[in-house]
Amino acid sequence: MKLYDFKMAPNPRRVRVYLAEKGIDVEMVQVDIPAGENLGEEFRAINPRSVLPTLVLDDGTVIDESVAICRYFEELHPEPPLMGTDAKSRAVIESAQRHMEWDGLMSVAEAFRNANPAFDDRGISGSTGVPRIPDLVERGRASTERFFASLNDNLGQSTYVAGEDYSIADITAFCVVDFAKWIQIRAGDQHPHLKRWYAEVSARPSSSA
Amino acid sequence: MKLYDFKMAPNPRRVRVYLAEKGIDVEMVQVDIPAGENLGEEFRAINPRSVLPTLVLDDGTVIDESVAICRYFEELHPEPPLMGTDAKSRAVIESAQRHMEWDGLMSVAEAFRNANPAFDDRGISGSTGVPRIPDLVERGRASTERFFASLNDNLGQSTYVAGEDYSIADITAFCVVDFAKWIQIRAGDQHPHLKRWYAEVSARPSSSA
Repeated sequence: MKLYDFKMAPNPRRVRVYLAEKGIDVEMVQVDIPAGENLGEEFRAINPRSVLPTLVLDDGTVIDESVAICRYFEELHPEPPLMGTDAKSRAVIESAQRHMEWDGLMSVAEAFRNANPAFDDRGISGSTGVPRIPDLVERGRASTERFFASLNDNLGQSTYVAGEDYSIADITAFCVVDFAKWIQIRAGDQHPHLKRWYAEVSARPSSSA
Repeated sequence: MKLYDFKMAPNPRRVRVYLAEKGIDVEMVQVDIPAGENLGEEFRAINPRSVLPTLVLDDGTVIDESVAICRYFEELHPEPPLMGTDAKSRAVIESAQRHMEWDGLMSVAEAFRNANPAFDDRGISGSTGVPRIPDLVERGRASTERFFASLNDNLGQSTYVAGEDYSIADITAFCVVDFAKWIQIRAGDQHPHLKRWYAEVSARPSSSA
């Protein structure tokens, strides 16, 4: 089994933090996204979608998308549970985890990618021939600000993103908050709950993954 | 339990088709998105994210995001399985299902929403104060064309989207292909495998849900 990874990017980091929380070791191969290695012939032969992270099983099965990769390991290594333990908790965590993706990760990515000349002609991950759209920089920044406010509200009501237990939703949120530093957005004094939570999750050993 | 639904929108339809496949009846409440009912005070009090579908359990728990809602029912009603049965099939289906969302649904939605005056100031679902961005119409259309080509390739290699069994990935793909009609993109003679599959899935009784 091999996990194609890139140390600097937020999505591969989600899987690395998840694996660290589970104590699972997987062979990693680095693919440099800004240098375009993910779009090169060699990696396209492995995953034509050209996205990271990508997990390749020993039988050749290719699994991309961070949460699908985590799902594979969650089924094989259920302890400690990071995706819920019954119908309600699994659904609540999946719902919260998707809020972190759609409201958070997508917003930061939109602002970051469309402002970055390294992604000229690569306005959508894994694609070429897609121009950057300058208007998305401001849209993404504004969405990120709204996300920080709503995450702060959320964390005013529960210890973790999806309730009283640490879960994969916290992993995504943590990677998003760190990713937002690349667009110069950080938690401020108006986000006391977010800061309390961030101090806690960034003190976990998995945060260095 | 109540499912907040809107008959015309693709995401709520994914859940309705899923429930029809499972033979599950849930009380539905219609919320008119183009008329802005999802952004009104009454629905915001139910789900501040203002998105549909939204499931509210009898204990008041709010679950939004189509796949999270389906996950809840999948755990309670595992037969027939639509989200896999073991680690590998669950991960492969989740991966394929996310391809349908990111490459397909998001592309069509981008073209549809940004071209539609009904969504002035609502460029992102569930939000206000977000201008439409005209450049996203063409980007979304181009991404949709690439999606149709890749879905056709995919369906040239397997009976269904995620392999030899019908799954939630087919439900999302089916709703995306129908949604694309709103932006005047349809499967053509260059998509024989997609047409073969579409004829089959649209003949299922669930397709009218």
